[in-house]
Amino acid sequence: MEFKYNVRDLKFILKEWLPTEEVLECDRFKEFFGMEDIDSILTEAYKVCREVVSPINVAGDRNPATFENGVVTSPPGYKEVYQFLQKNGWGSSSECIEVEGGMPLLLFKGAFEMISAACPAMGSNIKLTSGATNLIINYGTEVDKKRFLPKMLSGDWQGTMNLTEPSAGSDVGDALTKAYPTDDPRIYKIKGSKMFITAGDGSMCENTIHLVLARPTNGCKGSAGLGLYIVPKYWVNEDGSMGKPNDVTTVAVEHKMGLKGSATCMLNHGENDECYGIMLGAPPDKQGRSQGLAMMFRMMNESRIGTGHNANNQASSAYAQAALYAQERVQGYIKGERVPIIKHADVRRMLMDMKAHTEGIRAMIFKGYYSLDIAENSNDKVKAKKYKEIASILTPLIKCYGSETSVALSCEAMQVLGGVGYTNEFPIEQFLRDSKILTIWEGTSFIHGQDLVKRKMRMGDGKPFADFMAEIKSFIDENKATAGLEKEFNNLDKAYSCLDEVRKLYESWHLNKASELIGLYAIRSLFICSQVVVAECLLEQALIAQKKLAELPEDHFDVNFYKGKVASAKYYANNVLPNAFILTEIIKSADKASLECPEESLIVS
Amino acid sequence: MEFKYNVRDLKFILKEWLPTEEVLECDRFKEFFGMEDIDSILTEAYKVCREVVSPINVAGDRNPATFENGVVTSPPGYKEVYQFLQKNGWGSSSECIEVEGGMPLLLFKGAFEMISAACPAMGSNIKLTSGATNLIINYGTEVDKKRFLPKMLSGDWQGTMNLTEPSAGSDVGDALTKAYPTDDPRIYKIKGSKMFITAGDGSMCENTIHLVLARPTNGCKGSAGLGLYIVPKYWVNEDGSMGKPNDVTTVAVEHKMGLKGSATCMLNHGENDECYGIMLGAPPDKQGRSQGLAMMFRMMNESRIGTGHNANNQASSAYAQAALYAQERVQGYIKGERVPIIKHADVRRMLMDMKAHTEGIRAMIFKGYYSLDIAENSNDKVKAKKYKEIASILTPLIKCYGSETSVALSCEAMQVLGGVGYTNEFPIEQFLRDSKILTIWEGTSFIHGQDLVKRKMRMGDGKPFADFMAEIKSFIDENKATAGLEKEFNNLDKAYSCLDEVRKLYESWHLNKASELIGLYAIRSLFICSQVVVAECLLEQALIAQKKLAELPEDHFDVNFYKGKVASAKYYANNVLPNAFILTEIIKSADKASLECPEESLIVS
Repeated sequence: MEFKYNVRDLKFILKEWLPTEEVLECDRFKEFFGMEDIDSILTEAYKVCREVVSPINVAGDRNPATFENGVVTSPPGYKEVYQFLQKNGWGSSSECIEVEGGMPLLLFKGAFEMISAACPAMGSNIKLTSGATNLIINYGTEVDKKRFLPKMLSGDWQGTMNLTEPSAGSDVGDALTKAYPTDDPRIYKIKGSKMFITAGDGSMCENTIHLVLARPTNGCKGSAGLGLYIVPKYWVNEDGSMGKPNDVTTVAVEHKMGLKGSATCMLNHGENDECYGIMLGAPPDKQGRSQGLAMMFRMMNESRIGTGHNANNQASSAYAQAALYAQERVQGYIKGERVPIIKHADVRRMLMDMKAHTEGIRAMIFKGYYSLDIAENSNDKVKAKKYKEIASILTPLIKCYGSETSVALSCEAMQVLGGVGYTNEFPIEQFLRDSKILTIWEGTSFIHGQDLVKRKMRMGDGKPFADFMAEIKSFIDENKATAGLEKEFNNLDKAYSCLDEVRKLYESWHLNKASELIGLYAIRSLFICSQVVVAECLLEQALIAQKKLAELPEDHFDVNFYKGKVASAKYYANNVLPNAFILTEIIKSADKASLECPEESLIVS
Repeated sequence: MEFKYNVRDLKFILKEWLPTEEVLECDRFKEFFGMEDIDSILTEAYKVCREVVSPINVAGDRNPATFENGVVTSPPGYKEVYQFLQKNGWGSSSECIEVEGGMPLLLFKGAFEMISAACPAMGSNIKLTSGATNLIINYGTEVDKKRFLPKMLSGDWQGTMNLTEPSAGSDVGDALTKAYPTDDPRIYKIKGSKMFITAGDGSMCENTIHLVLARPTNGCKGSAGLGLYIVPKYWVNEDGSMGKPNDVTTVAVEHKMGLKGSATCMLNHGENDECYGIMLGAPPDKQGRSQGLAMMFRMMNESRIGTGHNANNQASSAYAQAALYAQERVQGYIKGERVPIIKHADVRRMLMDMKAHTEGIRAMIFKGYYSLDIAENSNDKVKAKKYKEIASILTPLIKCYGSETSVALSCEAMQVLGGVGYTNEFPIEQFLRDSKILTIWEGTSFIHGQDLVKRKMRMGDGKPFADFMAEIKSFIDENKATAGLEKEFNNLDKAYSCLDEVRKLYESWHLNKASELIGLYAIRSLFICSQVVVAECLLEQALIAQKKLAELPEDHFDVNFYKGKVASAKYYANNVLPNAFILTEIIKSADKASLECPEESLIVS
């Protein structure tokens, strides 16, 4: 199947909807990028995806990374494509902070969206390298930067994140990996096992730079005691040249349902007591506290948004394939004529459902990137602070709602194709398999539900969240009389009130320390909040589209695009958003059956 | 992982909830089975599943059926297990109609549920053989029966259904396969291609008996023109002995996301003009009409229920694995103590969600089997007619709601496990992959949605459906004051009213010939109806459990089972059933965005 992607919607987001120029005018970018670059970057990225990236996606699934005699070999073509993307500005050198000529997230992610849709496993390889590189940029010394950055940015080396251990998954703070001091105060001996390390080993690059969470010998218990260490697969000398192997051993590669193009590794650090790591940040304080996890989390906001983005990109690509198939596949009759299945009401509903969801979630995601760009780059400190807060509110919504929704959308895409969608003749079954992990990694859905109700709603005594809601309310009040969208704004207004009720209810639960209820309804509250935000984004876009439709002649080539935008908003507001009403009723009813049911009754023995 | 299954719930259904004795007292069964056999049959089946069936499930996924030099080889162990099950009464000889000593569906399906959960691909092999056998029993001549039945029932041969063709999927009536008359009026030459033939070839049996839809030369257009033919892979002589190959060629085996243990084949019939089939039923009438599809559909009610059942069995097995894992896996802290994850609120919610859904859908399924048993075997003609109607109303609900729900439940089970659930170390990712096809085959979800709103709600001028609803209403009115379940009955009453509103709305749409709305909201209407039925079943069971709890001492070993039944009903009524309220509002709002959106706007080009 040829790779198809909705570039038009990306252009709409960057050029017609979001105030992208505010970002491009920031000091860091103004000499390098202008609004006129958007089209050429997106067009070129689309070409790269069609010609270079998408051909290796199926290959990576059919010929997963192998693990033989301790050596991991990446799938065919992965090395070439990884290096092509990294060397040509489609990867870390454009994404990482402080790199001269780097792109704002808005621009980079527009292009990267297509790369991640064309080959999710390759997208992950790049993202992990960017994440590791950003940590070194942010917390490394000048020596560290000279040592590692050039080759990490050039694509010669790749980067990974080592958090999980066999007994420390969602609960990273229980990590057992140790860091022992050496004569050099910045160099530690590392010893321990890490698992589920995405792209943890392979043959794409000559070296792999692991960022490893480990507990120094004088570190305290729990997550506060963890430090962060740069642990290269091959030691790197101060001049950036490679030395001998650093005692990092791959002991297993997971057999996964999907995302087979990237090897998910179990790594042993220091089996022979010869694994060394360079400390990032300061050594533990007197209470044994390090900033390892905090440093990693500071860089994780973007990668959590990136995870939701990855999920939505796959769902978008599955939708594009399903729509094409629906237009071509002839089956069934209407008024005596055999018709392509796009004419059948339920196929229309499914396509509309995928379109509205993927566009709406994409909009929420890019609002997140815009917020991060302003937060990082604006000279206006008040504005930067405000958008930092907004980004931090949007992060759990994007990660959890984006990933949970994508699996259902891939199922829907398969349903459009019928039996043939269940075969590997089409890429949809691979998207379904590849995307399911995204509800789990970078924090499970439950972790993000709790992040919203315990932290994001309450940070700064609840003021940022109240401000966030107030902006939605203003938008509703200003536009609710818009002709043709009255019903939709009315639904958004109702859903807004629901969210407000839930927020207040949670306040009372926090006051009463009803901790079990707080957890029990966390994901459902996150869904309500996400549905409000997505509907708001789609209605903002529909207002622009309505104006365009009033201006353009009926036969203009872009008319169908704008009609589609209005339809997405209407569909979502009328068919999806009402779920927020009933979720609110369910939360208010505070049923505790699942907590009151004895544990023994839940076990099948 | 050891195979675990909720046998206790099956016993509850057969011995405490449904009036199984009414079925066992029917003439066909009364000499062979009594209530005292239920425990031993279920216990023995569970043992067979643990020891014989479940070990081949993973093997079939890792070593799918191969296709080399035109020969299909079944996965290791499949031949032995298939023959073991068929020869020992766990397959077609117990399931098929009119076979002496055959079981009522209630009993057979109780045992078969576990077989299908232990190895879904093996379950499909047996079900297809039973389906083909039942067609010959019902519509074959005495000669046909002598020719085919002994070896189909013994496990020496297997059976398949040949419906789909490359250009005839959901629209079977467009089939191009032809049947040409020969000198023998019951024997036709068959010529054409059939695809997606589950278990269409393999090395389990010495012969495969295909039941093939084909159009006789004097057959009319459309589905009415299709006849049904017995087409053996090797010709079968009248004495039942095997003759020469019958020109049925396997030309391809599909590469599927799951259910890899059974080969899904493309078959060419009559490539060399030497393929013969034996006609079932009468030749075409003067208008060219045959009863081929009607015969097949008459036998499909059970297999559609069976498809929903298969889905729910896999979800149940995934739930059992997730619950065990949650009890054993330690992660996170509560009040300073590391705890097994079953203590965390969201894990509790997910387990409760899986428990309530799988038990509720299982109950609806067994109500369906009970209805079929009474319909086929009761001497009371009025009662038989009534339950035939009930079975035909329940069929689309079970098929569509059961299969659509199962995929979401397998995702939920994986979520409980986290990253490890994404690997093939646990069987859950295989259940997710294996079960997704069940929303497609035996009629897609849309076909069943339409079956409900166009046929089942309206058959007999709507009286059977009105009677069906009236029984639900009586149940509510009789029990709504039950102490401890007031809120739940109140929700069921509200959902009942919703269903009634939807039914009336559909009546008006039918009157106004609003055919697009009828299709557009069909699946959502089916979900409302299903949720009402499932909630009713769970509340019926909760009433029994409440009585038991009042009788039993608190330390009785069965107390937790009954507490769990009450919790399932409460959870479903308070957390799932309210979705019917909002779906009703959505249907009433009759949004048409997806129909009004131009086709071009839905395509990503």
